[in-house]
Amino acid sequence: MPKVKFLPFNEEYEALEGETLFDVAIKAGIHINASCGGTGSCNRCKVRLVSGELKGEILEGQYYKACGSYPLTDVVVEVPLTTFLDQKTLYRPVKKRAKFLELSQVDFDSPPVKEVFLKLTPPTLEENTADFNRLKEGLYKQGISEPEVSLEVLRKIPHVLRQKNFETIAYVYQALDNPKTFLLDLTAEPLDPFLGVAIDVGTTTLQVEVVDLKKGEVLGFSSDYNPQIKYGDDVISRIEFCRRDGGLKILSEVLKERLILLIKEALGSKGRLEEVKLISLAANTVMTHLFLELEPRYLREYPYVPVATEFPVFWAKDLGFTDLNALIQIAPCKASYVGGDVVGGVVASKMYEESPLTLFIDLGTNGEIVLGNQDFLVCAACSAGPAFEGGGIKHGMRATLGAIEMVNIDPYTYEPMVVTIGKTKPIGLCGSGILSLLASLFRVGIIDKSGKIKKDLIHPRIRRGEEGWEYVVVFKQDTQTGEDIVFTEADIDNVIRAKAAIFAGCQVLVESVGLSLKDIERVYLAGSFGNYLDVEDAISIGLLPDLDRDRFFFLGNTSLLGAKIALLSQEKFAKMRDIAKSMTHLELSNYPGYMETYVAALFLPHTDESLFPTIKNKKE
Amino acid sequence: MPKVKFLPFNEEYEALEGETLFDVAIKAGIHINASCGGTGSCNRCKVRLVSGELKGEILEGQYYKACGSYPLTDVVVEVPLTTFLDQKTLYRPVKKRAKFLELSQVDFDSPPVKEVFLKLTPPTLEENTADFNRLKEGLYKQGISEPEVSLEVLRKIPHVLRQKNFETIAYVYQALDNPKTFLLDLTAEPLDPFLGVAIDVGTTTLQVEVVDLKKGEVLGFSSDYNPQIKYGDDVISRIEFCRRDGGLKILSEVLKERLILLIKEALGSKGRLEEVKLISLAANTVMTHLFLELEPRYLREYPYVPVATEFPVFWAKDLGFTDLNALIQIAPCKASYVGGDVVGGVVASKMYEESPLTLFIDLGTNGEIVLGNQDFLVCAACSAGPAFEGGGIKHGMRATLGAIEMVNIDPYTYEPMVVTIGKTKPIGLCGSGILSLLASLFRVGIIDKSGKIKKDLIHPRIRRGEEGWEYVVVFKQDTQTGEDIVFTEADIDNVIRAKAAIFAGCQVLVESVGLSLKDIERVYLAGSFGNYLDVEDAISIGLLPDLDRDRFFFLGNTSLLGAKIALLSQEKFAKMRDIAKSMTHLELSNYPGYMETYVAALFLPHTDESLFPTIKNKKE
Repeated sequence: MPKVKFLPFNEEYEALEGETLFDVAIKAGIHINASCGGTGSCNRCKVRLVSGELKGEILEGQYYKACGSYPLTDVVVEVPLTTFLDQKTLYRPVKKRAKFLELSQVDFDSPPVKEVFLKLTPPTLEENTADFNRLKEGLYKQGISEPEVSLEVLRKIPHVLRQKNFETIAYVYQALDNPKTFLLDLTAEPLDPFLGVAIDVGTTTLQVEVVDLKKGEVLGFSSDYNPQIKYGDDVISRIEFCRRDGGLKILSEVLKERLILLIKEALGSKGRLEEVKLISLAANTVMTHLFLELEPRYLREYPYVPVATEFPVFWAKDLGFTDLNALIQIAPCKASYVGGDVVGGVVASKMYEESPLTLFIDLGTNGEIVLGNQDFLVCAACSAGPAFEGGGIKHGMRATLGAIEMVNIDPYTYEPMVVTIGKTKPIGLCGSGILSLLASLFRVGIIDKSGKIKKDLIHPRIRRGEEGWEYVVVFKQDTQTGEDIVFTEADIDNVIRAKAAIFAGCQVLVESVGLSLKDIERVYLAGSFGNYLDVEDAISIGLLPDLDRDRFFFLGNTSLLGAKIALLSQEKFAKMRDIAKSMTHLELSNYPGYMETYVAALFLPHTDESLFPTIKNKKE
Repeated sequence: MPKVKFLPFNEEYEALEGETLFDVAIKAGIHINASCGGTGSCNRCKVRLVSGELKGEILEGQYYKACGSYPLTDVVVEVPLTTFLDQKTLYRPVKKRAKFLELSQVDFDSPPVKEVFLKLTPPTLEENTADFNRLKEGLYKQGISEPEVSLEVLRKIPHVLRQKNFETIAYVYQALDNPKTFLLDLTAEPLDPFLGVAIDVGTTTLQVEVVDLKKGEVLGFSSDYNPQIKYGDDVISRIEFCRRDGGLKILSEVLKERLILLIKEALGSKGRLEEVKLISLAANTVMTHLFLELEPRYLREYPYVPVATEFPVFWAKDLGFTDLNALIQIAPCKASYVGGDVVGGVVASKMYEESPLTLFIDLGTNGEIVLGNQDFLVCAACSAGPAFEGGGIKHGMRATLGAIEMVNIDPYTYEPMVVTIGKTKPIGLCGSGILSLLASLFRVGIIDKSGKIKKDLIHPRIRRGEEGWEYVVVFKQDTQTGEDIVFTEADIDNVIRAKAAIFAGCQVLVESVGLSLKDIERVYLAGSFGNYLDVEDAISIGLLPDLDRDRFFFLGNTSLLGAKIALLSQEKFAKMRDIAKSMTHLELSNYPGYMETYVAALFLPHTDESLFPTIKNKKE
């Protein structure tokens, strides 16, 4: 692999196959001006070739366009500096990712669906007990008593038993701590494969994994938006939609229709719907209610009571999945805003069985947080609002093609380096872009501790717009929309309120058990947003506590992982029920001192700077 | 009430309101010639008025038509005798009914569906556990743990709980020995009434009773033919029909469609479908299979194995009763031809808890017999064929309007007294008519012990027809069909084989436990046919054992009664399961000595006359 050395920083990084100089700069944390997200249209990302060979577009003299140039040999390039600068300020790792904690090695010890081989004695005139009795006796000898059976399976028993002279394979669901067992299917030849499906129903995104229940391996994956989005972006607007006549039914049905398509997509050619025997679903409490068509209204009305937090095992057919002869088990929820996604995530993280004091944060529309270890667990939901998903932000958007996911600002020129998802021209700002932008604005001193833009800075990007003061991230000639993409003081205010809600939640949770933030030994970041989170940025704006960066770990989509774990381990599914029952839940809105804690967090990074010893506003 | 004295017998009977002299004669067991079934068309039932006043049709002189004359005062009438006779022969009680054993006082101690009043504590922010948890806690305090709940009920929980500030009424199904409980419904105001439905699915007839589950009272009844009849008269032809593609589904669906109509009819204005919470069904094993759409073919293929004999409790919806939010519990069967109708009947009869040795006979297409008492129970099914339901008989028919239900033959003139159902012109012979006719033919000596017509008798009613020798029961001028109604030697042969199968079954059953027929202390006759059975006739042809007539009891439709009992008493329903498990079942076709016993019974009354000491063929 060719190496790229960047001057004047003297930093050297490898360029992987197909990576441009701009890509390598992003990896290296080198700021290069760029407004177009890396599409090659703004012509601002020029670098000078000092030595070596590049393939790419020469702009003038030895200057190449970084986003269109590939190293052919080891190269040395110089990033032109428009002004004298403190190298340390400009050079910083743009993506100081936390370690990704690999949790995918899931226990595959006791899947709730088992394949049971039976060799029954064929009936004679002397012993002609009914087929179902004969089958139940055979199962009983294998420790399975009085299974519940669907009419469909009951009806096939006589045919299947006679196919191979009363040798048969039973597919049995048996969950720990659940007295009910189910006879899911009966076949003469073993199903190959026989399958489970793990589903994460997020407010925004649906994710589906197909798992081979014989081997515990993932065979397929699919993902799509939650189609309920068109009836409301966030859980609150969807609950509102349910007040309409038939609204709840619509939300439930569009979701289930999309899920069956996703299951088919994830199956692909690897298996058929009739081979799916168990579906395991994890979702937040509102999504779980909508999935089951349970009235969600009381989730948001005082005193915030769910219809149910533990759910029976359902036949897929009863939920309208007419082509599926499978059971559906649903991760238990804790409370109205701490759902099965969080409970499943806690089990997936194993924090409940380890000694380090762990703070688990699932960042989404609401930040759900869990604190604890093997000795205790306490949780809360923070009403963070949708700012981290682009909601309530003038040019906010979801993390799709064209969304700005990273911004770095030159502390002297105030020119940004803008990176978009898919390297297309920018459309707007997604959550990670918003966070990165706010951190950058604060770091270079364009905004002050209270999030206000410094009006004395004279710069074309800093201006008074229609809705007050704003920073222009991308001018219209470089956007897809033909409009300037701006970040307003109102936007900043929204983000600060969101981060304050989460930080205050963490603080209150820690203090509720008599500890302080610095006692936290690990911070687990879950949710798909978590993956794109720059820990340094997040700490710098006071979203995450200022702890040793080595204590932060990304866990990925622990809701999906929780659903998968429940497919593969009865013990783990039982553990979810235990945790949903035993975990302490704080209602923050009602918690003494929460309001004060929240208000104190409405600064960058915080009113109490001693909480953020490593963070300094460079320009103050 | 006026009295009627019949000369020359000197017997006096009361005439009830609306009864003709013919009706009184039937009650009294007085033979009066009549071919038209009592419709007044044959003009043969003339009697002479000796004293008193009659309102009616005078035929000639003092002769009145018995079937058209009503006593206005006490009257004395003379039945004209065409020949010298032995009064004792002619005079015999035509309907020597056995006592009807009143079983309708059903235990109402522990209905499986209970109404549970709950006063739950409304939630607060400090204690905002889910509605379903709150409800389950409330139920748990009343001894009801982990009820299964339908999605429909789960969905209504939040609304119902908030109607009366968390005061609510739960309808819970809880059966003895069944670990599963069900939450059937939840209401703010008690259902009034709340209902159960008992159903007897007979091969020929469906009967439905609606029961108030608060009071244990029957509120309504309805009955109709089993609509499966048009696909086959008996169980064998219906099993055959199921070999066709979709045949089983058709039989199941027409039955269920008819049942829902019958439930509505029985409900009338007394209640609504949604107030029905439990349906209890009893049927023979084939009907149970067809109801549940279970493959019936192996019931009749060696070695005669049912798909199931014990059934889970089903949601009515899962069986296609879309308008019913109720459970369906089904009486357990013993074997392919000893069904839930018999098991339910045994429990209804209480024979299993009493000391007298009891023979329980359910006469239908197959005679099912159970022998035992509090110490043991043994059962068998006899392949009697459909003769007792009019099947396989040239002019046989079901017991409907126009069916001859009783025949008495004058031993000297060989002229019959014919009584039809509904007093209409005769159409054919139903089971009780066939039995009565055979007994009469044998008693007056028209047929011999082997069932052959005595060819040396010169009489217009005794002739060689197209299908061999026959007795003309009604000449065509008196029938509805315009054809002679005859009873052929082939018919007689069929009836003898049917009665022999049942008698031999009884004999083998008794001998299998080391006893003999004379040890039987009670004979219980069940089934709707039982009610019309003339015990004297039945003994005289060797269908029933020749025991003291006081030992015979009619029980009526014990299958329906069994279904009702299961609605009202968990203990009794559990007892059915016990009995289905513990009762010994003899496969007669395989039982050593059964064939010989059967062959010996192919005579009137039997080869071994010592078994029938009270029966004499008067003409032999």
